[in-house]
Amino acid sequence: MSLSFELLGSDGLARRGRIATAHGTVETPAFMPVGTAGTVKAMLPQSVAETGAEIVLGNTFHLMLRPGAERVAFRSPVDGTQHRLTPERSIEIQNLLDADITMSFDECTTWPVEEPAAASSMRLSMKWAERGKRAFAERPGYGLFGIVQGSIFPALREESVNSLTAIGFDGYAIGGLAVGEGQPLMFATLDRTAPMLPRDRPRYLMGVGRPADIVGAVARGIDMFDCVMPTRAGRTAQAFTRRGELNLRNARHRDDPRPIDERCACPACKSHSRAYLHHLIRAEEILASMLLTWHNLHYYQDLMRGLRGAIESNSLGHWIAAFQGEQDLGDIPPL
Amino acid sequence: MSLSFELLGSDGLARRGRIATAHGTVETPAFMPVGTAGTVKAMLPQSVAETGAEIVLGNTFHLMLRPGAERVAFRSPVDGTQHRLTPERSIEIQNLLDADITMSFDECTTWPVEEPAAASSMRLSMKWAERGKRAFAERPGYGLFGIVQGSIFPALREESVNSLTAIGFDGYAIGGLAVGEGQPLMFATLDRTAPMLPRDRPRYLMGVGRPADIVGAVARGIDMFDCVMPTRAGRTAQAFTRRGELNLRNARHRDDPRPIDERCACPACKSHSRAYLHHLIRAEEILASMLLTWHNLHYYQDLMRGLRGAIESNSLGHWIAAFQGEQDLGDIPPL
Repeated sequence: MSLSFELLGSDGLARRGRIATAHGTVETPAFMPVGTAGTVKAMLPQSVAETGAEIVLGNTFHLMLRPGAERVAFRSPVDGTQHRLTPERSIEIQNLLDADITMSFDECTTWPVEEPAAASSMRLSMKWAERGKRAFAERPGYGLFGIVQGSIFPALREESVNSLTAIGFDGYAIGGLAVGEGQPLMFATLDRTAPMLPRDRPRYLMGVGRPADIVGAVARGIDMFDCVMPTRAGRTAQAFTRRGELNLRNARHRDDPRPIDERCACPACKSHSRAYLHHLIRAEEILASMLLTWHNLHYYQDLMRGLRGAIESNSLGHWIAAFQGEQDLGDIPPL
Repeated sequence: MSLSFELLGSDGLARRGRIATAHGTVETPAFMPVGTAGTVKAMLPQSVAETGAEIVLGNTFHLMLRPGAERVAFRSPVDGTQHRLTPERSIEIQNLLDADITMSFDECTTWPVEEPAAASSMRLSMKWAERGKRAFAERPGYGLFGIVQGSIFPALREESVNSLTAIGFDGYAIGGLAVGEGQPLMFATLDRTAPMLPRDRPRYLMGVGRPADIVGAVARGIDMFDCVMPTRAGRTAQAFTRRGELNLRNARHRDDPRPIDERCACPACKSHSRAYLHHLIRAEEILASMLLTWHNLHYYQDLMRGLRGAIESNSLGHWIAAFQGEQDLGDIPPL
């Protein structure tokens, strides 16, 4: 295999692993910040690294359009969705982007969808996956992932897994979820799909999600995640915390001298009050987006650090109960 | 005096000094980045400090409106223009803002202006300056500056200086310039005004300016500057360099792998190419504003470091000739 994956431990279905890529090592379960256009929005690259992120996701389609693949050089992108590309051109572009992990070209099946349409869409993606595999140039430290489709239909997911494992990939992504089906259907699909995937290869749930989605998916054996949630929320005054989500634009923060989360080590929490962040948001200052994005990415990486530690110490069940209990508390009461 | 100013050396009319404030020391000649609404736009506070800035300017009027003076706490603001405030309320607000340097409440005389109107406007500011002086609470490390007005009329500037020195201030600002009169008239006004100011107090030229304006004003005995130029330009794709100004949106930078300035130590120049910055600008990424603002502030502080060093070594004349020669070269030619 071109991309090494070491399984370091497990707790129930949850896995603790390590991916070694050409550009560095990724401890799993891992969250990948989204860098659509070659930048994680409102963050300096070194700040992204300071949150603990070891890999970021780029978008083949966006980067192909602007600035163009031949023009870009940056570290560790993983590709998301693509459109209006041939499977071969998609692989070629990701090669030019020097992506450690190249994603198969696929169609993200729409939601809601009837089973026959989901089947046709999935089978198209499986043909494209095979073409992509032929086009992929194997290199040490670089890997190609297949993407399981089939919407919420167990038989289609099983067929898709069988198609992909017959081709053989360095890792397996689960696509077509978090498209509106809701957490119960998503978890039910993971319950059926994750155990069918090869144990010795990383598993990546695409586009997920909120903290509770990630926690539930890790418990179901998923190793990798990406989502625009923490970055996008950071540009709309929303903060993720141990005690749930909050909106700093809300007037109740206007005179609050406390940080978002006193246990958080990010620059927004170490140096600034809720009152100041509230002011920056009201004044439409760029610094509001910068600080809240940083906080949210830091929170997400804290979440992953917590999950990895819990799996290592075989205490994931207790950790999840504590996580859920704290989330249910909601934000600290006003002073 | 509440604010200490030490004159460390001079070269012709240019002065090398040090201001000691309640929050820290400021080496002069100094450039103060503008933090209108309690933030230097697109910069983390620690990043502002990393450029070498030792003091920033805030705006009493903006901060009074939002978030309100009673709500704000931040370091080392100096006040710019104010409107719809009484002289006493302006001083009170700046006291609440904990500004190291409080600026007198004044009217910035419009341009162009006839001498009689300039005289009335200046005399109004002088009355306000006297009221402000009575309202100011002297505290160690805090100072009150008077603002010389009088437009481009030497007799009015002289009258204004005499009024202010009779009242007695911790420092003297020159206001009402850089309002459209052009560099020759501004320098002519400085030539007449600066030598009349007390030698043992800092001199602050408000709202100036482009690099060549600052260099010329330092040579004429000015110690302090503020301007939105480097920050505003950073949000509109413009970069200041040793070889003049350039616009990174220009297509000629699209494939240029070189930094803005290979001798610049800022993060934009150390880690990124012109091509990447061009891409970020075209993609309307916040990171473009962040990196270019940082570069411009770093360049301005490099400029001040250069000026201070030249005065210390009594070589300002040679330094200015080299500065001008390099500016005249213009940007590096395309590859």
